[in-house]
Amino acid sequence: MSSVASDPVQQQAADLETARSQCSFPIVELTHVFHGGRAQWERKQWLMSLVENDPAFDRSDRYFLSRTERFHKGLNRMRRLIEVRNEHGLSKSDLSVVNYASDEYLPLHLHLGMFIPVIQSQASDEQQALWLDDAKQFRIIGCYAQTEIGHGSNLSGLETTATLDKRTDEWVIHSPHLSSAKFWIGGLGKVATHAVVVAKLQIDGKDHGAHPLFVPIRSLEDHKPFPGIVIHDIGPKVGANTMDNGFMQFNHYRIPRENMLMRYAKVSRDGVYTKPIHDKLAYGGMTYVRVILVENSSEILSRACMIAARYLTVRRQGPVKTPGDLEPQALDHLMVQYRIIPLIAQTYAMRFTSNWMDQMYNDLMQRLAKGDVSTLADVHAYSSGLKSYCTTVAINGIEDARKCMGGHGYSMFSGIPDYYNTALPNNTFEGENYLLTQQTAKYLLRQARAARKGMTSTLSVTTDYLGQLREPTLFAKQRWSASHAQDLMRIGTLLEAYSHRAARLVAELMDAANSGVAWESLQVECARVSHAHCQYLVVFCIGQYLDSGSVAELSASTRSTLHRLMCLYSLHTMERDMGDFVEDGFVSAQQATMARTQVRMLLQTLRPDTVGLAEAFAWPDFLLNSALGSSDGRAYERLVECLLQEPLNKEEMQDGVIRSYNESIRPLIRGEVGRWQDPDQASQPAGPRAKI
Amino acid sequence: MSSVASDPVQQQAADLETARSQCSFPIVELTHVFHGGRAQWERKQWLMSLVENDPAFDRSDRYFLSRTERFHKGLNRMRRLIEVRNEHGLSKSDLSVVNYASDEYLPLHLHLGMFIPVIQSQASDEQQALWLDDAKQFRIIGCYAQTEIGHGSNLSGLETTATLDKRTDEWVIHSPHLSSAKFWIGGLGKVATHAVVVAKLQIDGKDHGAHPLFVPIRSLEDHKPFPGIVIHDIGPKVGANTMDNGFMQFNHYRIPRENMLMRYAKVSRDGVYTKPIHDKLAYGGMTYVRVILVENSSEILSRACMIAARYLTVRRQGPVKTPGDLEPQALDHLMVQYRIIPLIAQTYAMRFTSNWMDQMYNDLMQRLAKGDVSTLADVHAYSSGLKSYCTTVAINGIEDARKCMGGHGYSMFSGIPDYYNTALPNNTFEGENYLLTQQTAKYLLRQARAARKGMTSTLSVTTDYLGQLREPTLFAKQRWSASHAQDLMRIGTLLEAYSHRAARLVAELMDAANSGVAWESLQVECARVSHAHCQYLVVFCIGQYLDSGSVAELSASTRSTLHRLMCLYSLHTMERDMGDFVEDGFVSAQQATMARTQVRMLLQTLRPDTVGLAEAFAWPDFLLNSALGSSDGRAYERLVECLLQEPLNKEEMQDGVIRSYNESIRPLIRGEVGRWQDPDQASQPAGPRAKI
Repeated sequence: MSSVASDPVQQQAADLETARSQCSFPIVELTHVFHGGRAQWERKQWLMSLVENDPAFDRSDRYFLSRTERFHKGLNRMRRLIEVRNEHGLSKSDLSVVNYASDEYLPLHLHLGMFIPVIQSQASDEQQALWLDDAKQFRIIGCYAQTEIGHGSNLSGLETTATLDKRTDEWVIHSPHLSSAKFWIGGLGKVATHAVVVAKLQIDGKDHGAHPLFVPIRSLEDHKPFPGIVIHDIGPKVGANTMDNGFMQFNHYRIPRENMLMRYAKVSRDGVYTKPIHDKLAYGGMTYVRVILVENSSEILSRACMIAARYLTVRRQGPVKTPGDLEPQALDHLMVQYRIIPLIAQTYAMRFTSNWMDQMYNDLMQRLAKGDVSTLADVHAYSSGLKSYCTTVAINGIEDARKCMGGHGYSMFSGIPDYYNTALPNNTFEGENYLLTQQTAKYLLRQARAARKGMTSTLSVTTDYLGQLREPTLFAKQRWSASHAQDLMRIGTLLEAYSHRAARLVAELMDAANSGVAWESLQVECARVSHAHCQYLVVFCIGQYLDSGSVAELSASTRSTLHRLMCLYSLHTMERDMGDFVEDGFVSAQQATMARTQVRMLLQTLRPDTVGLAEAFAWPDFLLNSALGSSDGRAYERLVECLLQEPLNKEEMQDGVIRSYNESIRPLIRGEVGRWQDPDQASQPAGPRAKI
Repeated sequence: MSSVASDPVQQQAADLETARSQCSFPIVELTHVFHGGRAQWERKQWLMSLVENDPAFDRSDRYFLSRTERFHKGLNRMRRLIEVRNEHGLSKSDLSVVNYASDEYLPLHLHLGMFIPVIQSQASDEQQALWLDDAKQFRIIGCYAQTEIGHGSNLSGLETTATLDKRTDEWVIHSPHLSSAKFWIGGLGKVATHAVVVAKLQIDGKDHGAHPLFVPIRSLEDHKPFPGIVIHDIGPKVGANTMDNGFMQFNHYRIPRENMLMRYAKVSRDGVYTKPIHDKLAYGGMTYVRVILVENSSEILSRACMIAARYLTVRRQGPVKTPGDLEPQALDHLMVQYRIIPLIAQTYAMRFTSNWMDQMYNDLMQRLAKGDVSTLADVHAYSSGLKSYCTTVAINGIEDARKCMGGHGYSMFSGIPDYYNTALPNNTFEGENYLLTQQTAKYLLRQARAARKGMTSTLSVTTDYLGQLREPTLFAKQRWSASHAQDLMRIGTLLEAYSHRAARLVAELMDAANSGVAWESLQVECARVSHAHCQYLVVFCIGQYLDSGSVAELSASTRSTLHRLMCLYSLHTMERDMGDFVEDGFVSAQQATMARTQVRMLLQTLRPDTVGLAEAFAWPDFLLNSALGSSDGRAYERLVECLLQEPLNKEEMQDGVIRSYNESIRPLIRGEVGRWQDPDQASQPAGPRAKI
C-alpha cells in the first residue's frame, strides 16, 4: 500500500519510496547487468564523480543559455576535460565515460572519434610518427572534412580537388563551386587547427578519385585561418549547438605532397599513383562506429525511461474511485504502462544486442589481423541494419517517453528535450537510416539465393534461419507452434515467429528481384526486410543472453523479471507489426489475439517493478538534470526551483514588471493603438472600464 | 528533360523550374482548393502582404535569438498586430491569417482564443457589458487559468479554492499547496492583467466544484501583480518560447462575489448556489478548438511538404548511371517518394476532412441554437478522435519530412524545426491524444451495441457503417471486393475496407467489454478503435469531396491528379496498418500485395507532379523562412547567406579568431594542460611537432 501524505507535494517523495520498496528484485543486480559488471560500474561511478564535483562541468544554467554563451562554456569544458584526462591518466574508454557524464557535444568529438582514428588507419608509419602524438596531446586539433554542401554519402560525387603540382611537389586543393565547400564538419567552424580533407586526386589530368589528405588550416601561432581557406561556423541546428560544425572553401590552397595519407594508396615524387592492395579493411572503422551507436541507443533511451518511470510514479492524475482517495498514479493507467514499460524492455534488449555486437566485432578484428575476411560481410550487414533499427527506435522512444509525461514533458526542465535534440542526427549520420537498410537487404538476398540453392554452408550465424527457404513448399505451410499462453513465454517460440517472418520477407524480395524488378524499385521492400531481420537479431541476442552463464549468477527474482521483460519486448514488438506475421497465415488470428492478451498480462505483472527496472540504469541526478525525474521524486518543487532561475523572472524584470512593458503592453492597455471596429458586428458602444 | 547547368549551384534553380514545367495540371487550381476558394486566397494574400511589408514582423534574425531577445521582440509584434488590426478594421478570421503569417506564438493567443470566448459563453449579459469591450480593445489582457502544477485534464482534481466570505461579499481565492499553483497558463507569466481562474467554490463548508471566476491580477496603472498573488514565467520549453506560460499562487486573495462568471451557475448575495440548467452547451467551444486543430494540422504539414518537395528536387545525390551525367534528384529515389508524396496526400486529405468538420460544426451550432442536441454526441466523438489522429499524423509527418531531407534538414535554416517545436504540444493540449481516443471509443461502443440490437436508426452519419454488425455471421464472412488494380482506384472500394476494419475492431471492443473486461483494461483497444474509425472518416471525407460539385469545376488534369493522390493516401495508409485489414481474412494476402504494388505505381505517376502538388500550398518565402525550400530553388546559396549572419561568425570574432581562444584553445595547443600518458599503451616518446 502507498503511504498517504497530507500534501500532494509531500506525497511525491513517499510514492517513489513506496515504488522502490515494491520492487521484486535487488535493483543493483540489473545495474551491474546494464553497465557491464560490478567493477565496471564502480569505475564508472568514480569517473562520473569527477564530473559531478568539478565546477567547470556545472549544468545548472544549461536550459537558459543562448547558443553563444553555451558555445563558449563548451570550449572551456573541452579544455577542462583534457586537463582531467591528463591529471588522472584516463584511458580512452575512461574518457568516453567522463565525456558522456559531462553531457555536452564538444568540438573534440570528431578529433577523437574520426581525426585520430583516420590517421591511425590511413597514414603511413612515418606519417603517424610525425602527427599522432601531437594529436593525442591536443597540440594540434583535427577534424574530418568529407561532406560538402552538395554531396553527402555518395563519395564519387565529391567536387573538391587536389591537383598535383609536380614542379613544387605540392597538392593544390580547390573548391570549384559553392556546392563543393566542405560542410557540417564537426570541430572545423571555430576550433580545429588541422583537417583530414577528402578530395579527388588529379594527377597529369587524370582523376584518381577521393583520398584523404592531412591539411593544416589554422595557424598554431595565432589560430587565424591560413590564406586561401575560408572557414565559417554553419549556424544554429536543432541541437548539438556547442559543436562548431563548419564550412570550408579552398582557393588553390597548397600543401606538401607528403601530406596525402599514404598507408594504402601512394603518390610518388614523380607523380606515380599506386593503388591500395585492398580496401576492405576500411570497413572495420565504420563497423566500430555502428557498434558504438547501438550501445549509445540503449544509453540515451535508458535516460528517458528513468526520468519517465519516476515521474509517472509521482504524478497522480485521473478520477478517484472513492471520494477522499488519492488520484491514481499515472503509471496505474494501462495506456501509460503500454507506452513506457516496452521502452524499458527495449533498452535492455538493445543493451544485450550491443554486447553481442561487441563480441562479434572483437572476433572480427582478431580474424582480420590474421587476414581472415570470412565474417566481414556478415558483420557489415548486421551492423548497418542494427544501426538503422536501433537509432530509429531509440530516438522515437525518447520522444514517446517525453510525450507520455503529458504537459510537463514539454518543459526543458523535464530533462529530455535538450539531449534528445543533440542525439537526433544519430538517425542521419554514419549512414542514413533508410539507405543503410539497402546494404543489409542486399546481403540477405545473396544469402537467401545461396540457401534456396541448398548452399546452406555459406549461411552465417545471423542468417542461419534462411536455411528454411531451401524447401519453399514446406516453408509456405509452416504454422506457428504457439498454442497456449505459456508458449509465449519461451524465447525459442518467439524467435520461431521472427525467423519465419524475416525469411518470408527475404524470399519475397528475392522473388521480386528474380522476376526482373529493378533493385531501385525495391527500396521500400529493402527497408522492410532489414527491419524484420534486425528484430529477429534482437530477439536472437535476447535468447543468447538469457541462456548465458552470467544470467545464472543473478538471483531468481531478477532472472524472472528479466525473462518476463524480454518476453514483453518480443510480444509487444510483434503486436506493433502484427500484419507481417499474420499475412501469410503463419500466425493465426487466434494466436495474434493471444499475443495481445499476453502483452497486457505481462504489463500487469511488471507494473510493480517498473521503477526498479528503470532505476537500475542508475544515472545520477546531476546527469539526468531533470526536475521531473530526480531521485527524491519531488517533481513539483524542483520545477518551481528551476523556473525561479529563468532570466525573464530575474534580470529582465524591473520592479516586478517586464522591461518591455512601456514599449509593448502599456500602449495597449492605455488605448494608444487606435480603436477596433469589428467588421463582423454592428458597431457597439464602448463599455465602462473593468471593475478592479 | 532537365536542362543542364555547368555548376551544381546554378543547376538548382533550373531543376525547380523544370519540375514546375512538368506539372500536369494548373497549380493555381489546387491553391484555391486548399485555401477555400479564389476570393479567400486573394484576401489571404493581401493579409499576408501586411506582414511581409512591415518591419515589426521581420524574421530574418529568427534563428539566432536567445529566448529573452525573442520574447521581447514578440511583445513588440503583439502590439503591432493589434495596431494593424485596428488600422485596417480586420475581422477575427482576418486577424488569424495575419497572426499565422507573422508566425510567432504570442501572449495574445489565449486572450483571443480562451479568455474572450469563455467570457462570451460563461459570463452573464451584465458581466459581458462590463468586461467584453475592454477585452476586445486589449485595454485588459486576459488568460485562462485552469491547469495546476499537479492537475491537468481531471477537473475534479483541482485544488485551488474560492471560499465565499458572506460578510464582505467576496471570494477568497487560495492555493493550499504548491501543487495547486496554476501552471502552463499562456499569457500569464508577464503580460496578462486579468485571468479567468477555475477554482472550487466553497460556500458554508460545502464544495460546489470547479467554476470560472474573473480575476484582476496586475494593476492597470503600473502592471505590478497585486499583493496576495505570486506570478512567474515557467521557463524555457521545447518551443513556444515567446509565450509567457505562467505560474500563479494565491494567498487568500479577494475578489467581489459578482466576479464569478454567472451565465449558468449562480451564487446570490446570501450565498445560495444555483446549479446550471444543463452544461452540455459547453461542448460547443471544445469542439470548435478541435476543428481548428484539424485545420491547423493540414496547414503545418503543408508547410513542411512544400519545403521538402522543393529541396528534394534541387538536391542531387546518388550514383550516376553514365559518367558525366548529373546525379539523380533526391526525389528520383523510390524511398524518398514513398516518404514524401503520401505526406502531401495526407495534407490534402486532412484539408477535406477539416472542411467537412467545419460544415458539420456549423450545422451543430444551428441545431443547438434551436435547442436540438441530437448531433452533439456524434460531433463530440469524431472531433475528439480526429483531433487526436490528425495532430498525431501532422506532427509525425513534419518530422518525417525534415528527416527525409537528410543532413541539411537538421539546420535551423531548413525552416522546419522552429515551427515544429512550437506545434509539438498540439498532441498534448486540448485533450491528450491518447486520452481522447477513449471518448471516441466509448461513443462507438454505444452505437455498436445499438446496431447489434438492430436499432440502426440511432446510427449517425459517421457511424452508419456499424449497421454491418447487426448480422455477426455475415459480417465475419465478408471479403474485400477488390480483385483488380483498377478496383483500388475507387474510393468506394477503399472505403469498404476501412469500414469493415473499423467495424470489426469496434465489435471486438464490444465483445471484450460485454465479457466483463474492465473499461480501464481496454485503453489500448480504445486507441486502436478510434484510430481505425478516424482513418475511415478521412477516407469518407475524401469520397464526399471527390463527389462534390466543386470538384466538377476543376480541369480534368487537376481532377485526375487529385483522384490518384487520394487513392495513394488511402492505399498507403492501409499498407502501414495492413495487419488490421488482413487479420480476420477480409483482405487476402494477394490483395495486400496488390495494394502495395498499386502504391508504388501511384508514386510513379505522381512523381512529375510532386512539386506542383506541394507548391499549390503557395506559402510565400517570407513565411517559410527556409534556406532549403525557397521559391528560387537556390538552396546552397541561401544556406551560406544564412550562416554568415550567425553571431559566432560576426560579433563573437576578434580578428577572425573566436573570443574564448585564449582561455580554452591556446592552453591546449601550447601544451599547458599537462601531458597525457595513455594507460592502454606502453609510454611512447613525444614526436616532433606537426609539419605546417
